[in-house]
Parts: sequence; structure tokens; C-alpha cells
Amino acid sequence: MKNIFIIGVGLIGGSFALDIKRRNAECVIHGIDQNTAHLDEAIALGIIDKKSDFEALGKADVVIVAIPVDATLNVLPEVLDKVSDEAIVFDAGSTKEDICLKVKNHPKRRNYLAAHPIAGTEHSGPSAAIHDLYKDKTNIICEVEETAFKLQEKALKLFAELGMRIRYMNPKAHDKHIAYVSHLSHISSFMLGKTVIDKEKNERDIFDMAGSGFESTVRLAKSSPAMWTPIFQQNKTNVIETLDEYINNLKHFKKLMEDGDFEAVYSEMETTNHIKDILNGIQ
Amino acid sequence: MKNIFIIGVGLIGGSFALDIKRRNAECVIHGIDQNTAHLDEAIALGIIDKKSDFEALGKADVVIVAIPVDATLNVLPEVLDKVSDEAIVFDAGSTKEDICLKVKNHPKRRNYLAAHPIAGTEHSGPSAAIHDLYKDKTNIICEVEETAFKLQEKALKLFAELGMRIRYMNPKAHDKHIAYVSHLSHISSFMLGKTVIDKEKNERDIFDMAGSGFESTVRLAKSSPAMWTPIFQQNKTNVIETLDEYINNLKHFKKLMEDGDFEAVYSEMETTNHIKDILNGIQ
Repeated sequence: MKNIFIIGVGLIGGSFALDIKRRNAECVIHGIDQNTAHLDEAIALGIIDKKSDFEALGKADVVIVAIPVDATLNVLPEVLDKVSDEAIVFDAGSTKEDICLKVKNHPKRRNYLAAHPIAGTEHSGPSAAIHDLYKDKTNIICEVEETAFKLQEKALKLFAELGMRIRYMNPKAHDKHIAYVSHLSHISSFMLGKTVIDKEKNERDIFDMAGSGFESTVRLAKSSPAMWTPIFQQNKTNVIETLDEYINNLKHFKKLMEDGDFEAVYSEMETTNHIKDILNGIQ
Repeated sequence: MKNIFIIGVGLIGGSFALDIKRRNAECVIHGIDQNTAHLDEAIALGIIDKKSDFEALGKADVVIVAIPVDATLNVLPEVLDKVSDEAIVFDAGSTKEDICLKVKNHPKRRNYLAAHPIAGTEHSGPSAAIHDLYKDKTNIICEVEETAFKLQEKALKLFAELGMRIRYMNPKAHDKHIAYVSHLSHISSFMLGKTVIDKEKNERDIFDMAGSGFESTVRLAKSSPAMWTPIFQQNKTNVIETLDEYINNLKHFKKLMEDGDFEAVYSEMETTNHIKDILNGIQ
């Protein structure tokens, strides 16, 4: 493992670069990004060793594609065209069905591993890259059997070095479930932020009244629209289904309040309280 | 300031007790709670010095009422009946209009200060009490002019010692704005938890897919229903208004997705992104 290519040197790609370099001092991290300011920043921050481009991909041992999921659909086939038979290419996108479909019949399909590391922060860009972002995090791998055995092994070794636990899942199930435990949270947070900002825009000091609870529920509304718009687009059907159910639950809660049925309001909250055990389980 | 009475020795009352005692070693912290197990726990944890009851309130210098807001409506008039003219009584409830109305004509109204420290965690009970919970937090005081001048001073000195910043507001405005920046967050979080649990109840390992983003948005769903039900009940009109606006925003977002208008989806998120600046402002 000598030449590591990172396509997209932001939070996700940059954090991979930092941890791989720390554990493999001898490797060279090549950065590819259509934003040249980001490449310069990534060099200045010591995230990548050198700027590179697609023409150099032939010498890659590992290629990590960490760009918005719509760009991945365009870029991945070209990356596979260019890499050698010994290179492992993986992505980190939050949707898996479209991308697996896109490269299904690519002659180099066996060089690709479909991955989704469940890790990130609400920040973006090279300056958001941090060490240990992937430590103790889940990495969901889809269609593992479509990847060449020796390249599976190479990728799994890398993920193990970074401290990740692996779960295998088919792309359809991944996209369905991730809509509930990730995509819906982002919409709920963005719309909560919007509701409060719309209401309070002329009374900025009202935010003095906001505490850590508000901060926690709207944190994800800081996330990058450029990253999230294509995720919602690719996972449209599943996300709309989660939104429907969420809106119905909110309407039901409102109805109980309107009816003055506060025993039922209590009970709604009490039955959801065991989220404690679930969350303790995932931490 | 010698005899401090804490009515309700949970997260809020217990955290006041810990910080007051640390800064005033000579004072005696008396605990009152209808849950005797909580009183025993509070003594064992060193939160209170002794158990007490309403009959002893005559010797109180300070009384802190930190119980659910429905119980406060019942308890506060009786507390005021029993305290001396030199005692300052304040509460910490998340609604202020009903309580101010309730004691409006009480002969000891001037012994009461209506307060809402914007501080807390999703945990409850004596074991949830922590040092420095109130440090650098906002404390909203309502109808300050209804409190005797010397007792205002006593309370403000105590809040300053604990590191709180003070904001003055009328009870109606408090209840309206707090519905947006606090009460709505709790409902959005509870209903998000419910939506995901309902969907995934037969697939517990799906929560392996949940990351820190999900954890952050559903954290408040761990909160105590006993505390929150009466808050929603007392602030019903305002909370229903916030829920209406939130549901409408979610429906609009869903409509944009159904229409395939992802430019508008992007724009919805981008305009909300400046929540970053607002949140940085409140931290």
C-alpha cells in the first residue's frame, strides 16, 4: 500500500488521509479535487502529500472516492477505467443502490467496494478533517461478494487499522434503513432550524433563550446542502416514506394536545423513552 | 444566607444545591421531596444536608421550587404562606404565565421571583445533579418588579455566584418564545424517536447504522414525561402554533422532493445553514 488517492479532500476524504498516513508513514497521499483552493488547503494542513489528477490513477494502490453522491455516479466509472487490476476503489457515500447499479456491468466492477462509513460531523471542507473520525464507527459494506477477494482483504485491513466495525448489507436494505436513522434526522433538524429562524428573525436576541437542547436538535442543520441534496435525490422514495410517517406522528401528537388528552401525550413520550437503551447500545 | 430549602431534589434542584453548598460551606441545605427514596439518595450523594418538610419553611432564607410545573402551581402558594418576610422563593419552571397568574394576588407575592434557568440535561433524578450546570447559562426572570427589592438583590447575587447571565422578560413573551427554542425541539425529538422505533422495532441491529447525528437529534427523547407533559399542557396554545409551522415546513419540503425540485431543496437547506452563526452566538 504505497500510493493512496483521495478524490475529494474534505471532511470524509481528508479524515481518511490523516489516519492512513499516521499508520503508514511510508505511503504517499495524492489528492484530487475540482476545488483547487481545497487542494492547496489540504497540502498546507498536511492532509495530502501532493496534488494529482485522474491521469495518474494507474499507479494507485487505493482510491477513496469521497465526494457528493451525484458526483460519485459520474466519477466512479471513469476511476475504474483508469486503475490497475491491483487497485481497490471504495466510496463513502450515504446512498448505495444507485451507485451499485451504475457500475454493475463495469468490466472493473471487482475493483470496487461499496462502503458507507457512518461517521462525520456537521462541518465540511479540508479544515474539518480530523484524526480518529472512523474509530469505533460502523462501516456498512454492500455487495461484498462483487469485489475481488484479494481486494476485499486489502480494504478490510485498512478499515480494521482505522478501528472500524464492519456490517454487510444489500444496497436496497441499506438505503431504506439509513433513511430512518440518518436522512430523516437531517430533514427534521433543517426544518426545525427553519421554523425557529422564520419566527424569530426580527428578534435575534431571542436565541439567548436557546439552550443545549435546541443546539443538539438543530446541529445537523449546519450540514452541507451540496452533500445532502443529491442524497435526498437518490434516496427520494425512502426519504419521502420516512417523512410521511414522521409528519403523521407529529400531527397525531398535535391532535392529542388539541383534544387536551395529556394522559396520551404522557404515554407517547413514555413509550419513546426507551430510546435511552437503544442509544446506549449504539455508543 | 443560612438555610436553603430545595423542593424537588432532582436534576435542577440538586444541581442548585451542589453549587450553592460549594460556594457557601456554612449554609445548610434542606431537601423536600414527595419521593422519599430521592431524599435518601440526595443525602447519600451529599446533595442535601438533611430531609425536611413544609412545616420547617418558616426558617428558610432561600426556597428553590424545582418540581414539574403542574405541581408548582399547587405548591407555590402554600410555600409563600409559610415563609418569613425575609425569604426569597424562586422556581425554575419552563412556563411562566400560569404560575405568575396563580400568585398574582398572593399576600406574599413580593417574596417570589419567577425564574427560568435555561439549563438541564436529558437525565433526571438526584443522580443527574451536577456541579456547574448553571455556569454561563441564561436565567430568564419574569415580572421582576413584583419582587421586593431586597429579595431581588439576594436572588441576583446567588445567580451571579453560580455564573448565570440574567435576561428580563414578561411571562407571555417568555412562554411564546420558549415554545420555539425549547418546547418544539423536545416534540421533534420524541416524534423522531417514535418514527424510527416504530419502523425498526423488529430489527434492533439496524441501530448499528445510527451515528452521532441521529444520537444528537433524538437525545431529548430521553427526557422525563412527568416533567414535560405539564409544560406542554400549560403552554398548549403556543406549542400547537409552533407544531403547526413545523409540520407545514416539513410538508413543504416533502412536496419539493415529490415534485423533484431539488434546486429548491438545496435552497431550503442553504437558507437555514446560517443557524451556524446563530448557534455560535449562543455558545
